[in-house]
Amino acid sequence: MKVSILGAGAMGSALTIPYSEKNEVILWGTEFDSEIIEKLLRGEKHPRIDEMVKASKILDHSRLDEALVSDAIVIAVSTEGVIPLFKKILDRIDSKMILTIAKGLIDMGEIMTIPEVMWNERPELKDKICAITGPSIAREVAKKLPTHVVYSSRGDETLKLAKNYLQTDYYRISISKDVIGCEITSALKNVYSIAIAWIGGMESKKGVSMNNLKGIIVTQALREIGMVVEAAGGRKDTVYGLTGIGDVIATFRGGRNGMLGELLGKGYSTQQALEELEKRGVGVVEGYVNAERAYKLAESLDSRGKIDLDDLRLLKSINDVLYHGRYAEEVISYLF
Amino acid sequence: MKVSILGAGAMGSALTIPYSEKNEVILWGTEFDSEIIEKLLRGEKHPRIDEMVKASKILDHSRLDEALVSDAIVIAVSTEGVIPLFKKILDRIDSKMILTIAKGLIDMGEIMTIPEVMWNERPELKDKICAITGPSIAREVAKKLPTHVVYSSRGDETLKLAKNYLQTDYYRISISKDVIGCEITSALKNVYSIAIAWIGGMESKKGVSMNNLKGIIVTQALREIGMVVEAAGGRKDTVYGLTGIGDVIATFRGGRNGMLGELLGKGYSTQQALEELEKRGVGVVEGYVNAERAYKLAESLDSRGKIDLDDLRLLKSINDVLYHGRYAEEVISYLF
Repeated sequence: MKVSILGAGAMGSALTIPYSEKNEVILWGTEFDSEIIEKLLRGEKHPRIDEMVKASKILDHSRLDEALVSDAIVIAVSTEGVIPLFKKILDRIDSKMILTIAKGLIDMGEIMTIPEVMWNERPELKDKICAITGPSIAREVAKKLPTHVVYSSRGDETLKLAKNYLQTDYYRISISKDVIGCEITSALKNVYSIAIAWIGGMESKKGVSMNNLKGIIVTQALREIGMVVEAAGGRKDTVYGLTGIGDVIATFRGGRNGMLGELLGKGYSTQQALEELEKRGVGVVEGYVNAERAYKLAESLDSRGKIDLDDLRLLKSINDVLYHGRYAEEVISYLF
Repeated sequence: MKVSILGAGAMGSALTIPYSEKNEVILWGTEFDSEIIEKLLRGEKHPRIDEMVKASKILDHSRLDEALVSDAIVIAVSTEGVIPLFKKILDRIDSKMILTIAKGLIDMGEIMTIPEVMWNERPELKDKICAITGPSIAREVAKKLPTHVVYSSRGDETLKLAKNYLQTDYYRISISKDVIGCEITSALKNVYSIAIAWIGGMESKKGVSMNNLKGIIVTQALREIGMVVEAAGGRKDTVYGLTGIGDVIATFRGGRNGMLGELLGKGYSTQQALEELEKRGVGVVEGYVNAERAYKLAESLDSRGKIDLDDLRLLKSINDVLYHGRYAEEVISYLF
């Protein structure tokens, strides 16, 4: 089939490689991707994945229309960009499938997952929407290193189509109907990654290894994610599968969430840590933005009697550190 | 109370530190611990935990009798040593509690966990036997760094006593009645750690990062451990708690199982890897010995219709590599 990827960041661009095994692939860049698109059009490697993309057409942001003719549209922009882009294109798409990759929650007054916002916008597309979760570091996907992800959708046909056309030898796809569970798990994983990284920061500050504490924090993180997922109508199995554990393991040391968490673990205040990351040229930390939303989601589940917020000690601690001036080391001792 | 620790290796010696907060502690060394005991008697630090032990008496192997007078006896020797030592002392103990730490399976014709063998030997002691599992790297326990473990027993009184007397601020104890689940999870974790470490070896051989594959393998390992635990009558929750996930995280990079696995991932045959470890002075690799037993346990659960051995692809692969001349890289591609 014909697949258009909207967003030429690391993940969108990496997916051109497995997707082009069986399909014609079009890559479109947003206005933020202009520099990258120029490089790609000059025949250079993608700077963030260090590989050549594989696309029959590479389009800059002025040529969005040409990308909307495909059988599958993959929205591969940041959490903040997904819904505006979706709204912009929704009257012009007549695809078999719409895929979403961003791992975040949306604040629409009420906190929602990305697919839920899409379902509300265009209920008749519900079965066509498919979310991609699970351990997939973009550079590794681009290098054809073994990857196994989860595609979730309410539509059986969509899942069948996705698996048939998009799976390759090195990019395996498992399918799931637990869209809510997959999306909440992924978004919360980014939030809890901040706390997991505190320990690395504390270790380097104190010059000791604290592996036992890492075991405690990861176990607690997955337990709490499981509670939120179940309370929101998702499945605990999802947390203990590739989407949860798999992704925690794959991203254990890296990413922007980890960088933020490590600075906090070293004793930086959130303000100082965010300034330091800005100095280093690190962009938006999705876990930071999502932490507030995750907490708001938990509060709303608590107020509806579906969960007891007091059981989410780690989430509360993360919130206290990120938004209420507490320090990581202080909340760890309270936590423990 | 009075607590005797039998075995002056890293873990037994480390436990003198939390245990002595509320109790009188006696440390007895086996004949393999003679050098360590001499050092400790000279007032030196324990060489493997780099801390002073805290014991009112430090006894060499000739003075076992003096250690058998306590309220709690902690058997802190290797898997191979536990049952012989237990049999040696069982007519001489009249303790309130017997604790076991080794993370392994025993081949008594049928494969059993250590507590099961003890229960069979002395049914009247069943409620007094308590197994210690969960993330506890000995050096970190000895340094009073945050640790949280699981004590499991069939006896409520035993669990209460253990928690009351042995828990400290930095050494937290959760209690569980799922003795079988805790013990199988711990033993299998050591086995699967070998496969998790393959990837580190493959990464350094190929000069690439394979975090997505790590996510796949850890997820599969925990899934398979869950299947075996449930088939054997334990609880899946145990696998997804401190005893399973917590310990996997805490020991992610280290230990002898990891060293063996990494060499296998680099392309060594098992024979070559074991020789290399011997050259480096590394002692018995418990996961290696346990892999065969874990496989035998799975075969027996399969023959009783409680599990389908074909679902345990990773365990089969580990077995193929360790005992049937296959190479890690080859089975990974089959696995994936």
